Amino acid sequence: MTGNCIIYGKNAVIEALETGTREFNKILIANNSRNDTKIERIKELASQRGIIFQFVDSRKLNQIEPEGRHQGVVAQIAPIKYTDLDDFIANVKGNIVILDGVEDSHNVGAIIRTCVCAGIKGIILPSRRGVLINPVVEKTSAGAVNKICIIKTNSLVNAVQKLKENDYWVIASDHHAKDNYYDIDYTNMNFALIMGAEHAGISRSLLKLSDFVVKIPMLTNFNSLNVSNATAIILFEVVKQGVKG
Amino acid sequence: MTGNCIIYGKNAVIEALETGTREFNKILIANNSRNDTKIERIKELASQRGIIFQFVDSRKLNQIEPEGRHQGVVAQIAPIKYTDLDDFIANVKGNIVILDGVEDSHNVGAIIRTCVCAGIKGIILPSRRGVLINPVVEKTSAGAVNKICIIKTNSLVNAVQKLKENDYWVIASDHHAKDNYYDIDYTNMNFALIMGAEHAGISRSLLKLSDFVVKIPMLTNFNSLNVSNATAIILFEVVKQGVKG
Repeated sequence: MTGNCIIYGKNAVIEALETGTREFNKILIANNSRNDTKIERIKELASQRGIIFQFVDSRKLNQIEPEGRHQGVVAQIAPIKYTDLDDFIANVKGNIVILDGVEDSHNVGAIIRTCVCAGIKGIILPSRRGVLINPVVEKTSAGAVNKICIIKTNSLVNAVQKLKENDYWVIASDHHAKDNYYDIDYTNMNFALIMGAEHAGISRSLLKLSDFVVKIPMLTNFNSLNVSNATAIILFEVVKQGVKG
Repeated sequence: MTGNCIIYGKNAVIEALETGTREFNKILIANNSRNDTKIERIKELASQRGIIFQFVDSRKLNQIEPEGRHQGVVAQIAPIKYTDLDDFIANVKGNIVILDGVEDSHNVGAIIRTCVCAGIKGIILPSRRGVLINPVVEKTSAGAVNKICIIKTNSLVNAVQKLKENDYWVIASDHHAKDNYYDIDYTNMNFALIMGAEHAGISRSLLKLSDFVVKIPMLTNFNSLNVSNATAIILFEVVKQGVKG
């Protein structure tokens, strides 16, 4: 197996097993979780794919994942394969979310989970600013990292320019915007939605490239939505427009 | 000061200082964060209120908050004052969110933050199942815990019955529902929105008491929204209806 990576949490492991695109080395299961239905599902899927699973003392899992969020299961697995943007544009298409410097792994994981629920096909992360896929992201995404194309890029500006050349509409979320997120008709376009870091927001060079800049209106002056909640609010307006037609 | 409690993170401390309802014992600031504008704001507010602040080695803060999320500031402060439901109904009114057994502190904090942005006036937490206000909730809420009435109850069923007797409409979010969350007109009612634990959902006794049960339609079969994102999606439909009139 090239490289090696740890994932943990029942949903994260089940989704990685079900998707089947990542090679497993082995799965470690805590002795005291034998009667759990999700653990049974993990054993069943592992058996079908010929993957080794071992029962171990839960203290061993605590050594691997000291924050105690492993839920009794840890897997050694091949890392996520990142998708090339050109490949994505040629072969996948579909809507994209771009994270400009989001640094909290819990937020990145929650955003990826919401993206998959909302039918988003790709997510673009900058290679150097912000978080890439790590065990916390995998866990928080509940395995959604396996159900979406994850694209990393050295230059978000170049990525956005390439998307525009390929008929994507670029939408930036910024609380100084004039337009509200629900004033856009999302139903007849391919779009790339840019969400910024919680404090710094979206970089100016990306704002300049955007076709639309939208805000989420608030009912109080406590103007401080968490970035994953802000992403969910916009994406489910898109879903709503799609469902309602 | 009766009781004692630790809060950390710049926004959490600033909001607690600005709201002014909680007594401070003292504020500890890391030596290496002297030039930060938010730290300057904390010093200014503390001076105005006659609250002691001390500069300490950041290792001292790491001892108090070992996960390294303190952002260079920790305060010893009086605990949150919970609001009595009768008082709330008599004197505050306004819309409420009820959390039925949500166990992740990050989720509870993010939900409270979103509630405040969305103009929700109260949040009800069960005393025994799920999370009450703790330092992680305070930090994740970015101080929003100080801007909303927090009500704890031994019986969510009794609380919901009392709300119904006082002309509240009770809305439950459940993914088996027939109606979509955006099919309700929220503009002319006081409502209590019940959100359930991520795995168990809302308890049957509460579902039975609900006037509306709504779902969030998804575009994929990955039916797994994080509870704070689900809450944000519903509450910002409410905001949108309010803004659009």
